[in-house]
Amino acid sequence: MPISLDYSLALHSSAAPCGVEADALSALQARFSDAKKSLFQRIDSGELGFWALPDGAHVAASKALAGGIGEEITDVIVLGIGGSSLGGRAVYEALGGPPELRDGRRLHFPENSDPWRLARLIETLDPTRTLAVVISKSGGTSETAAMLLVIRKWLRDGGCEMAKHLVAVTDPETGGLRALAEKEGLKTLPIPQNVGGRFSVMTGVGLFPCALVGLDVAALCEGAKAARELCERDDLLANPAGILAALHVLHTDAGRNMTVFMPYSDPLRATAGWFVQLWAESLGKRFSKTGERIEVGATPIPAIGATDQHAQVQLFMEGPKDKFTWFVRVGERAQDLTMPREEGQNAYLGGRTMGDLNAAQQQATALALAKDGRPSLTLELPKVDAFHLGQLLFILEAATAFAGELVGIDAFDQPGVELGKRLAYGLFGREGFEKDAAEIQETLRSIPTRRVE
Amino acid sequence: MPISLDYSLALHSSAAPCGVEADALSALQARFSDAKKSLFQRIDSGELGFWALPDGAHVAASKALAGGIGEEITDVIVLGIGGSSLGGRAVYEALGGPPELRDGRRLHFPENSDPWRLARLIETLDPTRTLAVVISKSGGTSETAAMLLVIRKWLRDGGCEMAKHLVAVTDPETGGLRALAEKEGLKTLPIPQNVGGRFSVMTGVGLFPCALVGLDVAALCEGAKAARELCERDDLLANPAGILAALHVLHTDAGRNMTVFMPYSDPLRATAGWFVQLWAESLGKRFSKTGERIEVGATPIPAIGATDQHAQVQLFMEGPKDKFTWFVRVGERAQDLTMPREEGQNAYLGGRTMGDLNAAQQQATALALAKDGRPSLTLELPKVDAFHLGQLLFILEAATAFAGELVGIDAFDQPGVELGKRLAYGLFGREGFEKDAAEIQETLRSIPTRRVE
Repeated sequence: MPISLDYSLALHSSAAPCGVEADALSALQARFSDAKKSLFQRIDSGELGFWALPDGAHVAASKALAGGIGEEITDVIVLGIGGSSLGGRAVYEALGGPPELRDGRRLHFPENSDPWRLARLIETLDPTRTLAVVISKSGGTSETAAMLLVIRKWLRDGGCEMAKHLVAVTDPETGGLRALAEKEGLKTLPIPQNVGGRFSVMTGVGLFPCALVGLDVAALCEGAKAARELCERDDLLANPAGILAALHVLHTDAGRNMTVFMPYSDPLRATAGWFVQLWAESLGKRFSKTGERIEVGATPIPAIGATDQHAQVQLFMEGPKDKFTWFVRVGERAQDLTMPREEGQNAYLGGRTMGDLNAAQQQATALALAKDGRPSLTLELPKVDAFHLGQLLFILEAATAFAGELVGIDAFDQPGVELGKRLAYGLFGREGFEKDAAEIQETLRSIPTRRVE
Repeated sequence: MPISLDYSLALHSSAAPCGVEADALSALQARFSDAKKSLFQRIDSGELGFWALPDGAHVAASKALAGGIGEEITDVIVLGIGGSSLGGRAVYEALGGPPELRDGRRLHFPENSDPWRLARLIETLDPTRTLAVVISKSGGTSETAAMLLVIRKWLRDGGCEMAKHLVAVTDPETGGLRALAEKEGLKTLPIPQNVGGRFSVMTGVGLFPCALVGLDVAALCEGAKAARELCERDDLLANPAGILAALHVLHTDAGRNMTVFMPYSDPLRATAGWFVQLWAESLGKRFSKTGERIEVGATPIPAIGATDQHAQVQLFMEGPKDKFTWFVRVGERAQDLTMPREEGQNAYLGGRTMGDLNAAQQQATALALAKDGRPSLTLELPKVDAFHLGQLLFILEAATAFAGELVGIDAFDQPGVELGKRLAYGLFGREGFEKDAAEIQETLRSIPTRRVE
């Protein structure tokens, strides 16, 4: 069964007065066709590689390499950050069960320069039973480099052969990590040069860690492939990713500059984190493609239903009308729980399942928002399995790509993080960044200090 | 050492051109004095109980009850949601280490009607070695009630005596859960009637679970008490919570309606989740205190540094200037890691600590934002321990309370979630909600279905 998109509550009606008319959506057909054409020029020229990934080119290599890892390996530390970590983690959490309750081999994603989790990992794990997977296009990302330095020493001190305990997922040809891998005879998997981090889940970046814990990465790609067919439809109103992107544009124009991403599903919590990066980093841009300073971008807000009904929904219901909510609803639960009958105030729950309760809560929240003119749409997954997760991930990637084209920005770069990196190097005293260090000191001196203790 | 607040980058200067002048902050002194007076009337009248909690009235009872739980209990399931779960979880994660790598007794927070985690818990744990702690003022919260029904059956089926394996944290006098506890002889702790969920971390709600795993809940309250002194200062510019609230008002007025809460600290990830509820549910309100329809509220955006430099910072740097960022910076790390020296592109890291790298990244990100007129402030914790965490939590609670008064709304209710609850009962077929069920069907019929597969 395919994923479905219900956007009944995203368009104006008397019962859901959100102000964006159905006609406005259909009227975007021509603009969507242009956007799609423009995107496909970049895909067809080979500039953008993510559209081809559902064909599964990286499945076999990821599975083969994972299959060669011995059963003595009980723990895998994934050394990556951002797009080198979030996709694998999303799939692992969605399909592998609650990480802290898992039997068998485990993945760990320390993903930070904060030493908190990494320190505990090397205190707890046995290096001889651990595999480290370092994921970085260049190997120069400072958080990943820092984690790798620490882990390499830990492996060496533990008497572990690097070639057996360290795998590199990196650029197929260039960069410091590729060089290290060749020098030390590490096993490697390639990150294609035309695939950016946040679109890389269906390369070794996401597939290899998940294959190591036995998840069905082939089905993930098959689901993405099935979804891709839908996302290639020319008819906007038949194209789920197109509708997502077009509704995003319409609701942004109507003053709703926040995209709430709210799965009613705990296993999709990490998927929400993955989406936050995808949406924020792709669409938050200072310049248009033509170089105009526009400072655009909707802010993604992660939420989990029903949990956040007791945290954020008060704001979503009563605060400023600045949000467009994307619900994700799940049909069948992997393991549902029937509530036993007890007398008293909660007798109404008896004999029903928690999954049914959760589903009713989702529909009720969407309706309550709609009645006050607060729009939403609902992506429905028949269940959270590899196939349907692959569908979801791909539709969201395609929607992001279409949205970028519709808005007229480049959804595939991230120029805004460079200044911060440079200043951090300067502050940290890295050679070659002395000028930045001086500039920082100059800036700091010029800012009046305001501080209270 | 006290927590400190550096707001140098939250006020306009040539190097940080964010447009909000220092004079504007000082000019809020009179309004702050009124807000503080108004808040203290509610505190002194007994309407608001949270201000007294740092005195530690709930410490002894929580510790005593926890001390009576035998060592055979290895796992504790906390059955609560929203304010009945987030505070305890924040303290547990911050002070207890990464939950999935913990030795010894563990806490679990399923906090949802989604059965995903609960199903796995009852599959994995041994009921005879498990304590369930149900936290709810009334016992009628449907997610909590659902989880409790399932867990009670699991305990019964496991041959466990309810009075030994179930503790209730609930209203001291009324409600279904109090009645159940009395009928079955459960041990209980009170949630004072004048303390709302999101301000309840320093009652048994947060203290009891954390005492069960040996965390220093007395020091948590002592830290809060030390911070409370600062938050009682009349001089706005000497009062950290006052400054937070006042800067929030100024930056909201300047069009920045999102509050990014970004600790450069993994142990504070769950604290960010706690803050999201506190800020969103307290300040997102449809009506002013005087009944005017105003639909206000800043949206909290959780982020973790340096991790989110590779996810959200691109948007924060280049997107719309609609955010005011609150960084949390940590002085000394509980366990720091020194990066060994290796040749090559990452040689600059050798001999330094990851904590230092993380700190440099925080400062660099704040400066990079400031240069483009994007304001921030930084709360600095000398370290993440019970005392300083208590300070942080209390300052944020006080800031929220002051902000509510400054904006002229009631920060202590949550009327907006009632409609969704009622509709969910209707959809779920709960007795007494037949009228809502009929209304929903009527509404659904009137909305054109728009769906794509």
